Amino acid sequence: MPVLGKVYLIGAGPGAQDLITLRGARLLAQADIVLHDALVTPEMLELCPQAEKIPVGKRSGQRSVAQQVINQQLVDAAQRAALVVRLKGGDPMIFGRADEELRALEEAGIEVEVVPGVTTALAASAATKQPLTKRGIARSVAFFTSSTAPEHSDHDAIPETDTLIQYMGGREAIATAERLLRHGHQPDTPVVVIENVSRADQMVHRMTIAQLSQGLGTPHGPVLVMIGEAMRSREHQRFDTEISGTIATQLRA
Amino acid sequence: MPVLGKVYLIGAGPGAQDLITLRGARLLAQADIVLHDALVTPEMLELCPQAEKIPVGKRSGQRSVAQQVINQQLVDAAQRAALVVRLKGGDPMIFGRADEELRALEEAGIEVEVVPGVTTALAASAATKQPLTKRGIARSVAFFTSSTAPEHSDHDAIPETDTLIQYMGGREAIATAERLLRHGHQPDTPVVVIENVSRADQMVHRMTIAQLSQGLGTPHGPVLVMIGEAMRSREHQRFDTEISGTIATQLRA
Repeated sequence: MPVLGKVYLIGAGPGAQDLITLRGARLLAQADIVLHDALVTPEMLELCPQAEKIPVGKRSGQRSVAQQVINQQLVDAAQRAALVVRLKGGDPMIFGRADEELRALEEAGIEVEVVPGVTTALAASAATKQPLTKRGIARSVAFFTSSTAPEHSDHDAIPETDTLIQYMGGREAIATAERLLRHGHQPDTPVVVIENVSRADQMVHRMTIAQLSQGLGTPHGPVLVMIGEAMRSREHQRFDTEISGTIATQLRA
Repeated sequence: MPVLGKVYLIGAGPGAQDLITLRGARLLAQADIVLHDALVTPEMLELCPQAEKIPVGKRSGQRSVAQQVINQQLVDAAQRAALVVRLKGGDPMIFGRADEELRALEEAGIEVEVVPGVTTALAASAATKQPLTKRGIARSVAFFTSSTAPEHSDHDAIPETDTLIQYMGGREAIATAERLLRHGHQPDTPVVVIENVSRADQMVHRMTIAQLSQGLGTPHGPVLVMIGEAMRSREHQRFDTEISGTIATQLRA
């Protein structure tokens, strides 16, 4: 039986190279093997030039490695190298299939440590300068994702928090907007849609629930949808750092 | 009128010096003035030895600077220095009063940028190795806080997500547990309580909703409470990195 290495599940953050944590960057620079998602950007992998890099991408609509295969690859890596990094976009512990990977590694007796990252919602909040909570207006936030399985598509409960954040929210977000309207939410409730948060090709679209329910253009990258009064623009807010010039009407399908 | 500087709202993360982002650390090292919360750790301030440091602490139960005063201090700082950092524990955009500070700065015509951070919930999830979402078990997460105002104390809605994260959740979490039991949640639903996440004095307490409703000892620092099936321990999970040896019964008030 070979000597067992240690595996670090590390959150890469939203994509920009300097939005990973100091701890994450240090471990990447020391790693023997890095298994990374398709959502991890090439610039992030520049932080580990010395490492053997294994893509185990999951990207919606594209062929990806099955989770069981990834689990086995992690165990194999820890059996042939001392410092193994499993690098995930955003934070590994939210919508990251960490449970399966932790189970597989623990069952094999391999030591694991988790290094948190900046989750996409908070990067989007920072990029658009829209806080997710606001005193007196928004005291709770839900992060959710919708299954695309038919048995879930219509009666998924939408969390009743003040701010709603839908991860991987491209087409799914249209259904969310329709359901919110049916449940009596104000049609002019503000929505911010953001693609490729923190990357050079970041796009920000501001609209209302009513407009979102009308459709959304074809996104070019990971989409996050933020809904609620907290998304309303401030009186003196500047939008000069937002790359998007797209207006909501252009986004309708 | 003096030349106006730029203000960066930066998330320091949970406390450990190496859990700030690379971008946050670089800006801290360049800052002329750093206005920081009481939740920002001394080791974090070691990243900006050159800066004038202004404590504007908010700590529950202790005297703190009023928000309007902080807003004015930020504007004043930007009128006498080029690079001003407003450093907040966790992430600035969730439960961080960022809206008020952004408004004050924008109204004064001062440029602002937000640098996201690792929010406490994700640091807690990493430290305890309990993912907030789990395939087939937990697909949604809510972050919330309870007002201590009497008019809110009893009929605050608890979000109906699979995983519940209560920030600043010391005594408030007991009321949450009571309400969850009244609403028919299983008494053995697992709970993880964590104090001083990522710091040397981190404490982790594992219990059930029923136990939490019985009380919680006097916490020594910021407390985060995580509730839901996602908090259930795994079969081969190790707890050797958890500093806490405290058992739930010792925590009862």
